[in-house]
Amino acid sequence: MQAKDIVYLNGSFVPRAEARVSVEDRGFVFGDGVYEVLRAINGRLFATRFHNRRLEKSLAGVRIALQGDDSPERFVDVGKQLLKENSLTGGEATVYMQVTRGAATRAHNFPPADTPPTIYISVARFTPYSEFAEKGASAITHPDLRWGRCDLKTLNLLPNVLASQVAKERGTFEAMLIRDGVVTEGTKTNFFGVVNGSLRTHPCDSHILPGITRSVLRELATALGIELDETPIKESEIPKLSELFLTGTTTDVMPVVRLDDKPIGLGKPGELTRKLQRVLQESLASGGD
Amino acid sequence: MQAKDIVYLNGSFVPRAEARVSVEDRGFVFGDGVYEVLRAINGRLFATRFHNRRLEKSLAGVRIALQGDDSPERFVDVGKQLLKENSLTGGEATVYMQVTRGAATRAHNFPPADTPPTIYISVARFTPYSEFAEKGASAITHPDLRWGRCDLKTLNLLPNVLASQVAKERGTFEAMLIRDGVVTEGTKTNFFGVVNGSLRTHPCDSHILPGITRSVLRELATALGIELDETPIKESEIPKLSELFLTGTTTDVMPVVRLDDKPIGLGKPGELTRKLQRVLQESLASGGD
Repeated sequence: MQAKDIVYLNGSFVPRAEARVSVEDRGFVFGDGVYEVLRAINGRLFATRFHNRRLEKSLAGVRIALQGDDSPERFVDVGKQLLKENSLTGGEATVYMQVTRGAATRAHNFPPADTPPTIYISVARFTPYSEFAEKGASAITHPDLRWGRCDLKTLNLLPNVLASQVAKERGTFEAMLIRDGVVTEGTKTNFFGVVNGSLRTHPCDSHILPGITRSVLRELATALGIELDETPIKESEIPKLSELFLTGTTTDVMPVVRLDDKPIGLGKPGELTRKLQRVLQESLASGGD
Repeated sequence: MQAKDIVYLNGSFVPRAEARVSVEDRGFVFGDGVYEVLRAINGRLFATRFHNRRLEKSLAGVRIALQGDDSPERFVDVGKQLLKENSLTGGEATVYMQVTRGAATRAHNFPPADTPPTIYISVARFTPYSEFAEKGASAITHPDLRWGRCDLKTLNLLPNVLASQVAKERGTFEAMLIRDGVVTEGTKTNFFGVVNGSLRTHPCDSHILPGITRSVLRELATALGIELDETPIKESEIPKLSELFLTGTTTDVMPVVRLDDKPIGLGKPGELTRKLQRVLQESLASGGD
């Protein structure tokens, strides 16, 4: 058990149990906000520059303007402060930051321009999924029912919630989403596969979230001379997959060895997956800022 | 100004300013909930049976189970109580009811089954849009970016918020959403049009919300011998529209006389629109339960 459980809400550091928002907060009534999740290792945050840039893009995409001194950089500082307050400067932790369009009388269109956005930041202990990383995880396929701007990291997460729950009930780690006959991504991860020897993943368009780990991994792969082909994997190509893995801020590179109760390749983590897993792990160990 | 401003939250009647939910409420972090808006006229609620049934369908669709004595019928009673508490038993008002999957440590999949849903109910004074009802309103067309289960009335409303704001900035009342080349509905209304003399609207499938006023109006039209053709209006048919109107719990039948800055028909409310507007008004005047 943590000694303390302090979160940040609208300028104050408060116990989590006392952190409450108005029922008129637009996050609560419209899911009208965006968020980020960062990885902290021994008190150092990983890939903050990428997360900050993505948060800026999400805010711009939904047209929320921060006020005063608020900025993603400031939120990172608050996150670091929270890690200290909660004695999480050793080992693994996550930093969650969320911005909503604030509280106002309910109306679909935007509230008055001087309505302050709601800022909520919290941290949590995190245990990496070591067993899945070693043996490989299983997944299911599921229809991708999400909206047309999956490139923005918004709070409209109900389709992700529902698919994630189905995955859990089927005893698997993640749902691989299928839209118009192609694999887009997972409910909280990006999917990569090897088809006919070539490493494939969905391109960054409005149907997937541009994953930070996805982008770090692409750079690492390029450095190793491994080309990433951003041609989406077709549903019809699934039987041809020799390797499959997912990436994410808390999943790193996680092999997927069973999909819809059938083995992928030899039913164990593939060679390329292992190689990329290794280089990402090295990068995590040396990185952070 | 209202003398009091009391809302209902999780079993208690509290001043709106004191009604607060946990930052871990799944409504706040995932938009993980559903809602209804009912019309109250002189303290009587309109079409409660339809709203209750739709709320049940939304709850079932997102797999939220009410606990204990909670039911849509009970929420209606609470709504009536709130109308009294807030001195809104005379004139026009709305009753808003929202259910989220409750508060729990953030994880996409469902929280433990005993997590109580969050119930929030509030009422507000409402002024019908009489001027628009008389002269007609204007609208814009906008891409329909929403998810694949628009038949559920969920809190994942960000695409509605964004389109609604664009409509407002263009000086119009509503955005008419276009998906795959056809008119689906508005951000908070259903759209009906007259093409070559026939009354058309989108069928009830996963791309539109089954509007209560839409369904009441269909019955009223049938009684008048007016057939409703549920063949969606194509974007390419927009220039052929002789009449256009929208329906909703707070909009009733509202003529739309300008779309994307061009007149619809003669640029004034059409004959069929006026007829349907009249019968709905009569039904509202005599209805309620």
